Amino acid sequence: MSRPWHLLLVVAIGFASAIGCFVAGVYFQHNHATRLLQQLVQQDPYAYYISPKVFGVFCFFSSATEPTHRVQRIMKYGFPGLDDVRLYSDFVLSYDRRNRVAHWVCEHLQKSDLQGTRHVIRARAAYRPDLSVPSTFRSTLADYRHSGFDRGHLAAAGNHRGQQIDCNETFFLTNIAPQIGQGFNSGAWNKLEIYVRELAQHFGSVYVCTGPLFKPRPQGNDKWSVQYQMIGSSMVAVPTHFFKVIMVESKLPLGKPYMEAYVLPNTPIPEELTIREFLCDIREIEHLAGLNFFQGIRRSAIFGSNYPSQSQVFRDFA
Amino acid sequence: MSRPWHLLLVVAIGFASAIGCFVAGVYFQHNHATRLLQQLVQQDPYAYYISPKVFGVFCFFSSATEPTHRVQRIMKYGFPGLDDVRLYSDFVLSYDRRNRVAHWVCEHLQKSDLQGTRHVIRARAAYRPDLSVPSTFRSTLADYRHSGFDRGHLAAAGNHRGQQIDCNETFFLTNIAPQIGQGFNSGAWNKLEIYVRELAQHFGSVYVCTGPLFKPRPQGNDKWSVQYQMIGSSMVAVPTHFFKVIMVESKLPLGKPYMEAYVLPNTPIPEELTIREFLCDIREIEHLAGLNFFQGIRRSAIFGSNYPSQSQVFRDFA
Repeated sequence: MSRPWHLLLVVAIGFASAIGCFVAGVYFQHNHATRLLQQLVQQDPYAYYISPKVFGVFCFFSSATEPTHRVQRIMKYGFPGLDDVRLYSDFVLSYDRRNRVAHWVCEHLQKSDLQGTRHVIRARAAYRPDLSVPSTFRSTLADYRHSGFDRGHLAAAGNHRGQQIDCNETFFLTNIAPQIGQGFNSGAWNKLEIYVRELAQHFGSVYVCTGPLFKPRPQGNDKWSVQYQMIGSSMVAVPTHFFKVIMVESKLPLGKPYMEAYVLPNTPIPEELTIREFLCDIREIEHLAGLNFFQGIRRSAIFGSNYPSQSQVFRDFA
Repeated sequence: MSRPWHLLLVVAIGFASAIGCFVAGVYFQHNHATRLLQQLVQQDPYAYYISPKVFGVFCFFSSATEPTHRVQRIMKYGFPGLDDVRLYSDFVLSYDRRNRVAHWVCEHLQKSDLQGTRHVIRARAAYRPDLSVPSTFRSTLADYRHSGFDRGHLAAAGNHRGQQIDCNETFFLTNIAPQIGQGFNSGAWNKLEIYVRELAQHFGSVYVCTGPLFKPRPQGNDKWSVQYQMIGSSMVAVPTHFFKVIMVESKLPLGKPYMEAYVLPNTPIPEELTIREFLCDIREIEHLAGLNFFQGIRRSAIFGSNYPSQSQVFRDFA
C-alpha cells in the first residue's frame, strides 16, 4: 500500500511545483521586461509616448505604474506635437527641421529649481549648435551673426537653475529662435518670462509651453498668405510671433487648473503695454501652430482669461 | 533504505520540473507579449518606429523577427519624419497640422497592384475630409471650393488599384494639396505620376515619397523669405513646389538601389518641357522639407542623375 501513496505524493508535488514555477517564470519575465522597458521610456520620448499602449500589452499582474522620471514629469499632460521630439536635462523640445527652430519647448518650473542661484552661473553657459541634429537641419552660430536678430531663448535660462547642466542646455541653438532684440527679447518677452517665474514662485509649480508662430496675414481681395524671413546659410526661419501657454495645477481635490496663453509679435513692443494685452485664446494658438496643449485636461476646464488682472490671479487661484 | 531513496527521487523530480516549468513560464510570457506587441506594431506607426528598441528588450530567446505587414513593407527604408504619422490601407502619411497638408506620403508600388483595373473604379471614390484629424487641423471640401486650385493627389489614385478601399483612401483630403490645375495637375505632375507607374511596371516594385515644399526666395539685399498663400477658412497652405523621391531596389545581390528626385513648381509648366528637366538633388529636398529619405541606405549608394536619359534607366538598371 505504501508505493501508490508515494507515487501520488510525487505526482502531486511535481504538479504543484510545476504550476508554481510556471507562474514564477511568467512573473519573472514580466518583471524583467517591464523594468527594461521603463529604462527605455526614460531615454526615448517616443518610447514614452507609446508606453501606455506597450504597457497595456503587459497588463498581466498589474497596470504597470511607472516610476517618476523627468520625461513623465515634464510631459505629464501630453505632447503638443510629435515632430522630432528631443529630450534635454530639464526641458523637452520638438524641432522643426524645415524651419531650423523648435516647434515647441515644454518646461515644468518648480519653485526649488528657481532658487539654486549660488552654484548655477549663467555666464558659464555658451550658445552652441546641438550636434545631435543632422548638419542639414542644424542652425549654427554663423546664421545669427550680423543677422540683426537676437538669439532668443524659448525655454528661458532663468527657469533652469537647479544644476549647471540644466542652465547650459537652454543655450543649445535648438532652443533658440531669431528675436528682435530691443523692445522684444530684452523687453516684453523678458517681462513675460519674469511673470512665469513669479507664478512658479507663488504656486510652487507651473507648466509652460513656448514656441514660434508663422501667422497668416490678409493680402487684400480675401486672400491670406504666410510670409517670413530666413536668415543665415542654414536658412533659419524668423517667426512672426511667439507664444507661451501656461498652466497651473489646482491644489484643491478635483480643482480646475488655471491656464492662460500669450502671443507676442516679433517686433519692438512699446514699453507702456503690459503683457496682459497679449492674452490669446489657446485654441487660436493651436490652430496657428498645429499643436495640441495639455490634452490630458478636459477643455471645459480652460478658463484662462477669467481673471481681469494679474494681481487677482495671485489672490484668487488655488 | 527505501525511504531516503524515494525522498531523493521526489526532490529530484520536483527540482527538474520546477526549472523546466520556470523556463516554460518565461518562454510563454515572452511569446505572449511578443505576439501582442506585433499586433500593436501593425496598427500604430509610432509603435512600429520604436519597435526595434522595444523588441530589443525581449531579446531573450531570439531576435524577434516580425512578420511582414503593410507598415513594415511601405516604411522598409525608414520614416522621412515623425510628425503626426497616419496609416492608410495602402500608404503612410505624415500630416502637417500647421499647414493642413501632408509633410510626406510614402507608397510602395507593386506591379500586381497596378493591374487590378477591373474591380477598382476610380469614379466610385469621392474626395472627403479625414474625420480622424481633429477639426481644428482638418481641411474641408469648402476650403478648396472656388479657391482656383485643384485638389491634387500626393499618393496618386492610379497607383492604388489593388482593392477599392486602397483607391478610395487616396481621396482623403489629408492626401490632397492645392495644385494649379491647367499645366500642372493635369500636365507635368500627371506625366511624373505616369512615369513612376512605368518604373513600377518595368522593375516590379518602386518606393515613392511625395510631398509639398515651401521654398525660400531671394528678396534682394541678401535676404531670403518664404511666402505662400493660404486658402479657405481652415487656412490650407498652397505649396510653392512639390517633390517626388523615387527608389528602385536592385535585383543584384548587394546591388546599389536606383534613386532619383524631382521638384516641380506649383505653376503652369509648358508642355514642351520633359519631367527630366526637374531632376533635383535629394539632399536639397531634404534641406528644404526638413525630411530624411531612405535612411536605411548608405548615402554613397545614391547616384540618381547618372543616367542621361529615361530610356537608359530602363535599359541599364538591374
